[in-house]
Amino acid sequence: MRSVIAESTASRQRIAGETGLSLATVATVVGELITAGLLVEVGFEDSAGRPRGLVAVAPAGGVLIGVDVAETYVRVDLFDAALHFLDGVEERLHPEENRPEQVVGHIVAAIRAVLQRAGIPARRVLGAGISVPGQVDRDGGVSVFAPNWNWHDIPLRGLLVESLGIPLHLDNPLRAAVVAELWFGAGRRREDVIVLTLGTGVGAGLAFGGALYRGATNSAGEWGHTTLVLDGRPCHCGGRGCVETYVGAPGIIQHLRELDPDSPMLHGNDQTATIDALAHGADTGHPTALKVIAETARYLGAAVANLVNLVNPETVVLSSWVTARLGEPLLTEVQAVVTRHALRRPLTAVRIVRSTLSGDPVSLGAATLALEGFLSGITGGRSGRR
Amino acid sequence: MRSVIAESTASRQRIAGETGLSLATVATVVGELITAGLLVEVGFEDSAGRPRGLVAVAPAGGVLIGVDVAETYVRVDLFDAALHFLDGVEERLHPEENRPEQVVGHIVAAIRAVLQRAGIPARRVLGAGISVPGQVDRDGGVSVFAPNWNWHDIPLRGLLVESLGIPLHLDNPLRAAVVAELWFGAGRRREDVIVLTLGTGVGAGLAFGGALYRGATNSAGEWGHTTLVLDGRPCHCGGRGCVETYVGAPGIIQHLRELDPDSPMLHGNDQTATIDALAHGADTGHPTALKVIAETARYLGAAVANLVNLVNPETVVLSSWVTARLGEPLLTEVQAVVTRHALRRPLTAVRIVRSTLSGDPVSLGAATLALEGFLSGITGGRSGRR
Repeated sequence: MRSVIAESTASRQRIAGETGLSLATVATVVGELITAGLLVEVGFEDSAGRPRGLVAVAPAGGVLIGVDVAETYVRVDLFDAALHFLDGVEERLHPEENRPEQVVGHIVAAIRAVLQRAGIPARRVLGAGISVPGQVDRDGGVSVFAPNWNWHDIPLRGLLVESLGIPLHLDNPLRAAVVAELWFGAGRRREDVIVLTLGTGVGAGLAFGGALYRGATNSAGEWGHTTLVLDGRPCHCGGRGCVETYVGAPGIIQHLRELDPDSPMLHGNDQTATIDALAHGADTGHPTALKVIAETARYLGAAVANLVNLVNPETVVLSSWVTARLGEPLLTEVQAVVTRHALRRPLTAVRIVRSTLSGDPVSLGAATLALEGFLSGITGGRSGRR
Repeated sequence: MRSVIAESTASRQRIAGETGLSLATVATVVGELITAGLLVEVGFEDSAGRPRGLVAVAPAGGVLIGVDVAETYVRVDLFDAALHFLDGVEERLHPEENRPEQVVGHIVAAIRAVLQRAGIPARRVLGAGISVPGQVDRDGGVSVFAPNWNWHDIPLRGLLVESLGIPLHLDNPLRAAVVAELWFGAGRRREDVIVLTLGTGVGAGLAFGGALYRGATNSAGEWGHTTLVLDGRPCHCGGRGCVETYVGAPGIIQHLRELDPDSPMLHGNDQTATIDALAHGADTGHPTALKVIAETARYLGAAVANLVNLVNPETVVLSSWVTARLGEPLLTEVQAVVTRHALRRPLTAVRIVRSTLSGDPVSLGAATLALEGFLSGITGGRSGRR
């Protein structure tokens, strides 16, 4: 499915070449996907005089929903079965609005709104992927721990299924962001990829050998809660000196407050407004804004170098809203700091880039996880791999 | 091969069950290994009235050599093709004795000595695995960077092949130690495993999905050169505050020196003697020795918690000579510190243990890598996986 989507149309021979699967296996899986209404035959291509059948994603083959629940907003995007964006809705979350039933209410309202606007009945939805911050028990559909909201063991899928009647796939933004990059972004055709989500919280999505890595209990990637400064800033996780306390949005804002407690760039507890002001300041060469970005990069670069030395990845992608806003100035400073901290051999092997995906990579990745979930249901898991 | 060695004898059906390969593939590979003289048919077992052929490792099927080159010694061990230990030789390296030709001289002399003593001609050696500290280019057989010796781009395999005429497989102790644990130790039947080598240098061997993880350029696992204390102790890698500067043998000795510059446990630049004295001190309840172990565990535990939060492994194994000497007191303190630093979900999933392999896990792992290299030569790489 990833091959067909990447190429718009593809022959079975080409899919076999791309995936390393045998032609027989590809023919079986393609047949199942045609029966399920996800792929259609669209014609033939000429190969040394012999025609080869071409398949493409069926335009009427159902839709997918991706939901990105963040500390400051709920975003719901609608995609066709080839994961082309159709429509989206975003609702802001106020900092106090973080009780589970409040968040669930926003998700349900936004999904209903986007389906109604597109005139699509719930039965045409192949699945909805829902990304929530923190640690997630996928099989149980439970948010195990969302540190920024102090959520523990919230049965989100249960709360949502009642209202929606759509197949739901719960996961977290680290997983969603790396899947989006693997299918559509800087991780395409790469083996060992790290996607850093830089927002209110921070974390790393990991892919090894071209496939998502989850760890023993789907909680791999808590890079935000690795210690960078032993006995440093206190963290809401109970530790001290965690990466997140220096490079998460509140940590960046603290750098600004320490440099200039009266800065007009400070906007109380409105993180997005403050980060926007910093981005604007950096664009216009404001010295305090540039100092805050350099200070952030000093910590972020060291923490990225830790990943480069430990994991020896091909690609590190900076993603999420803080990356989008602070942009090129932050990336440039981070690359310089990594160059000072990382060992030569893994440094030579790695590219550090910003995400180039348009739209919200987390909702796209969540919808992709929903597609993978749907596919593994109809093909017994075979096409869910690689 | 791993299945057969683990079980002493095994049927093709059992190997298929263990490896997840099809019975047809297993039958083909077993046939190739019998032809190559590595496996022999040893009889039948009864399965619901139908006899199944059993195979075992051929006793006369050649030998393997594992070489562990460390900062303070060169160890050469001889194994049969089932990786049973036959004989070994260890030579001490003096701290100044670290020029490549000196180290190569020790390796060649020790391999010749152990083969001569066993009366085995070089042509019966299936391969020698050689572990050297630092970063290694396996394909080129080059030690790319050995920071404790300041080696850069030393063509070790070339230097050794001339003298020995044996197939050589170069890698580093992180790789060797994790392969040994996967085949024979705490990593057996585990998916996501981290083996920490604690010696003069420190590092992490990584296995994901039950297979060795190397990263993009075989330099994954440089956990010793991840920053734990930003702007902390200077490290020979050029960085500051690296894990290794606090938990490598010289770092531990520095804790002792800072607590008591005149301690009789200090033995100049003889690291092993000082660590031995600390181990003895801890055993007899000497308060300074206990404080040094607690201080070491404060850093080591935080650095292990970083791995637990980032990788979410099933098993973390502490290995190598510092672990062997400081033993249970160090492990107990480390477990307590990890419990304070790690997030609940990955903490619940992980077991932190000491290596229980007898002998030198690095030379065993190096010999195992040589066996894997030999097998991939005769089966086209198929049995080298998983």
